[in-house]
Amino acid sequence: MNIIMNGSGGRMGAMMATIVAEREKDRIVAGIDPKGRINAEPFPVFESLEACDVDADVLIDFSGAEAVPTMISFLQKRHVPVVVATTGLSDENMTALKTLAETSPVFQAANMSLGINLIRKLAAQAAQALGDAFDIEIIEKHHNQKKDAPSGTALALADSVNEARDGELHYVFGRRESAKKREASELGIHAIRGGTIVGEHDVLFAGIDEVITISHSAYSRRVFAAGAMKAAAYIVTKTSGFFTMDDLISGR
Amino acid sequence: MNIIMNGSGGRMGAMMATIVAEREKDRIVAGIDPKGRINAEPFPVFESLEACDVDADVLIDFSGAEAVPTMISFLQKRHVPVVVATTGLSDENMTALKTLAETSPVFQAANMSLGINLIRKLAAQAAQALGDAFDIEIIEKHHNQKKDAPSGTALALADSVNEARDGELHYVFGRRESAKKREASELGIHAIRGGTIVGEHDVLFAGIDEVITISHSAYSRRVFAAGAMKAAAYIVTKTSGFFTMDDLISGR
Amino acid sequence: MNIIMNGSGGRMGAMMATIVAEREKDRIVAGIDPKGRINAEPFPVFESLEACDVDADVLIDFSGAEAVPTMISFLQKRHVPVVVATTGLSDENMTALKTLAETSPVFQAANMSLGINLIRKLAAQAAQALGDAFDIEIIEKHHNQKKDAPSGTALALADSVNEARDGELHYVFGRRESAKKREASELGIHAIRGGTIVGEHDVLFAGIDEVITISHSAYSRRVFAAGAMKAAAYIVTKTSGFFTMDDLISGR
Amino acid sequence: MNIIMNGSGGRMGAMMATIVAEREKDRIVAGIDPKGRINAEPFPVFESLEACDVDADVLIDFSGAEAVPTMISFLQKRHVPVVVATTGLSDENMTALKTLAETSPVFQAANMSLGINLIRKLAAQAAQALGDAFDIEIIEKHHNQKKDAPSGTALALADSVNEARDGELHYVFGRRESAKKREASELGIHAIRGGTIVGEHDVLFAGIDEVITISHSAYSRRVFAAGAMKAAAYIVTKTSGFFTMDDLISGR
Repeated sequence: MNIIMNGSGGRMGAMMATIVAEREKDRIVAGIDPKGRINAEPFPVFESLEACDVDADVLIDFSGAEAVPTMISFLQKRHVPVVVATTGLSDENMTALKTLAETSPVFQAANMSLGINLIRKLAAQAAQALGDAFDIEIIEKHHNQKKDAPSGTALALADSVNEARDGELHYVFGRRESAKKREASELGIHAIRGGTIVGEHDVLFAGIDEVITISHSAYSRRVFAAGAMKAAAYIVTKTSGFFTMDDLISGR
Repeated sequence: MNIIMNGSGGRMGAMMATIVAEREKDRIVAGIDPKGRINAEPFPVFESLEACDVDADVLIDFSGAEAVPTMISFLQKRHVPVVVATTGLSDENMTALKTLAETSPVFQAANMSLGINLIRKLAAQAAQALGDAFDIEIIEKHHNQKKDAPSGTALALADSVNEARDGELHYVFGRRESAKKREASELGIHAIRGGTIVGEHDVLFAGIDEVITISHSAYSRRVFAAGAMKAAAYIVTKTSGFFTMDDLISGR
Repeated sequence: MNIIMNGSGGRMGAMMATIVAEREKDRIVAGIDPKGRINAEPFPVFESLEACDVDADVLIDFSGAEAVPTMISFLQKRHVPVVVATTGLSDENMTALKTLAETSPVFQAANMSLGINLIRKLAAQAAQALGDAFDIEIIEKHHNQKKDAPSGTALALADSVNEARDGELHYVFGRRESAKKREASELGIHAIRGGTIVGEHDVLFAGIDEVITISHSAYSRRVFAAGAMKAAAYIVTKTSGFFTMDDLISGR
Repeated sequence: MNIIMNGSGGRMGAMMATIVAEREKDRIVAGIDPKGRINAEPFPVFESLEACDVDADVLIDFSGAEAVPTMISFLQKRHVPVVVATTGLSDENMTALKTLAETSPVFQAANMSLGINLIRKLAAQAAQALGDAFDIEIIEKHHNQKKDAPSGTALALADSVNEARDGELHYVFGRRESAKKREASELGIHAIRGGTIVGEHDVLFAGIDEVITISHSAYSRRVFAAGAMKAAAYIVTKTSGFFTMDDLISGR
């Protein structure tokens, strides 16, 4: 695959360059970085998608939520299959991506790791099996440079368990109370930030004298880069439509 | 639910009474204890099921294997849904329960902890999904008075994940090596002992730069009572058939 | 010791009754419970401290922050040594207790466990050794009936590490952001609530590619009851003054 | 500093090359790799120390225990200050290093991370404070390519807590028993192996209904490389003697 890397100057952009360089049949043909930072790997870097005139099979996006509207405008003209791996997307971003998907292939995931997508399935199953006898709380940990809290992955995990509980839960983002018990319908989501933690997610099911925990730890960004490459190989086979990790895992 | 508690005078009977007293919609309407021991909770106690003329939605049995034949005779007449939590059942007991199940709803499990049964299932699923790209290790923690190591539960968890891996794994109980790498077919099982820890089990799946962990912590025998209540709520919806924790968890 | 148990009808009151009943030289001579709940143990229960005319060597308080002002008024007249184990005290409560301590012996601790008080010391030491190269976050977990969040213990841990960092940190209680990084001076405090979790506290130090965690788990309220008895035996030897677990541990 | 990198072809050798390349005043002037693997960084690589005729201020060793005797012979002739970061050293290796230290400066540490060395201090303190009322167990996790089990770091942690307990503990490496309780003098050490886990160490103190845990997680080898550079800067100031992380941290 020939890849345009949107966000080539960031940390995930650098990781993508490393992982693609190890693969024989794939290469990055252009990078996009608003600051024009040149990567060690040998591909041209443009300051914007508009300025990029290189042909490609797929666009992989690890840019940032603020860059998404510009990217969508570009794709409405160019119709390159896209893997959107940027986190912290707004409802507006999501709506625009789904509109784009009517005419162009779009793959979107809050977290590109296959492991995370497995625990999402397991957590949903646990939520259904345990029902309202167990309280659910989600704890996520990320590095101190992350801008969105909680993580898109934590919210996706929350949505999955809430769906398994028929949408009866409401989300609580941290707690500070002097005289208020937890409500049965609460789902606490806690965003820990510190150091260079790559990404940890715990889904906690606390019942009467027992606790079940389903956890995922990512030790490097390689996990997300590997998942993004799998998503790219998947989305280039489509002509239009909105796809997620669930589709990829189920082989739809 | 209105509950007849078979074995109300025993330790688990007392625990059931405590747990039901905390619930609004459930109550024990009759206890059965051959020694006629009166529980602190306000329900009548009969010396045998035959002597009990109270109507109920479900019978929960924590009595003892020797009391099972009498209970089966009673249920063949009354057809009350039953949760059999008594351990040490004979093959004859099991055959009789399955015959009873043809006309009456029967739930049976040797281990009522919903949590442990759930993580066994989730761990097996994860083992299958992740395949040989992930190494599996099990860590269990118990109090310093426990005589067997590893725990029966840890071995049951190991058997479940090994089955999902087509029996290709061999168990290793601790490691002390100076120049030997882990073999791909190893499944390490580690027994930590200390203090009064009631019971903790972790199943670890370690892959390339990511780790998935499925954990269970038990804090008291109340987990068995809680599981029995879940089983009761499940079996009252059935008209006949033999059900286990696997059915409950799968929502069959 | 002859003990007046303030809050005898609550969970910790019941645990205190159990633990005192096991000891030869100590007994509860009166319980105070506003709802007049009679405990299984054989001592009279009064609806208020004012109504209690029984003499005692020490008053142990596990009542609730709202009952503290009344207790202080009572002690200003009676001058019984007191162990204040109630959590969620306001600044006003603390000021009033310190005024009381000028003429009457007062022992106060956010957490009666000796283990918790040890990790407070260790965490403060770690904070000092690691300095601003590591971000500090505190995660605490308690049962779903707890009314205050975060726990008094979590706040005490935060104060200890902040003191070691020269008070330069400010507390953040959960996070929900779309475009804001963690500030270097943040100390995140996260209150997880669920099931019957007795009490868990983690102090996390996250640096460049390494994380240090200092954790305490209490598996039953016995830990706090045992600590409260140690505090009682300590405070009855004083004639006035404000004392904490640090004093007890240091043998001051 | 001009550095000879013993083990330049291994994973830690590559990490050292990366980290040194980021520093202005330091450079690797020679690498040693028995297989003659050339690193991406620009320095000559020799197949043995004997073959290396380049002058240097310090030798940093991440080679492997089997290469240590050869290195010691080399240093007995050349007297270059050395940082020995290789793990799994035998008693013979340690004796030989201490003999070498009589005439040449030697820095040795089972784990080069400053964080690990801090938790060693904290764990020793906890062991002393808690005494024999708490059972101690150590759990370590590493990648599936590690040859020694348990890790040198786990053994160093065990030695530190055992020293604080007056050497009364004996080490147990995993458990498999059918009818034998934990002895009070046991210190269990458990080596988990899987995936690419960089290094995790937990020291567990389990008492009556409470557990204290002191943990360290390394997320990349950068932690060890950074520590090795600090050790190098420290050992080049010495003319002879055997030094450890304790000396470095205490500024001796």
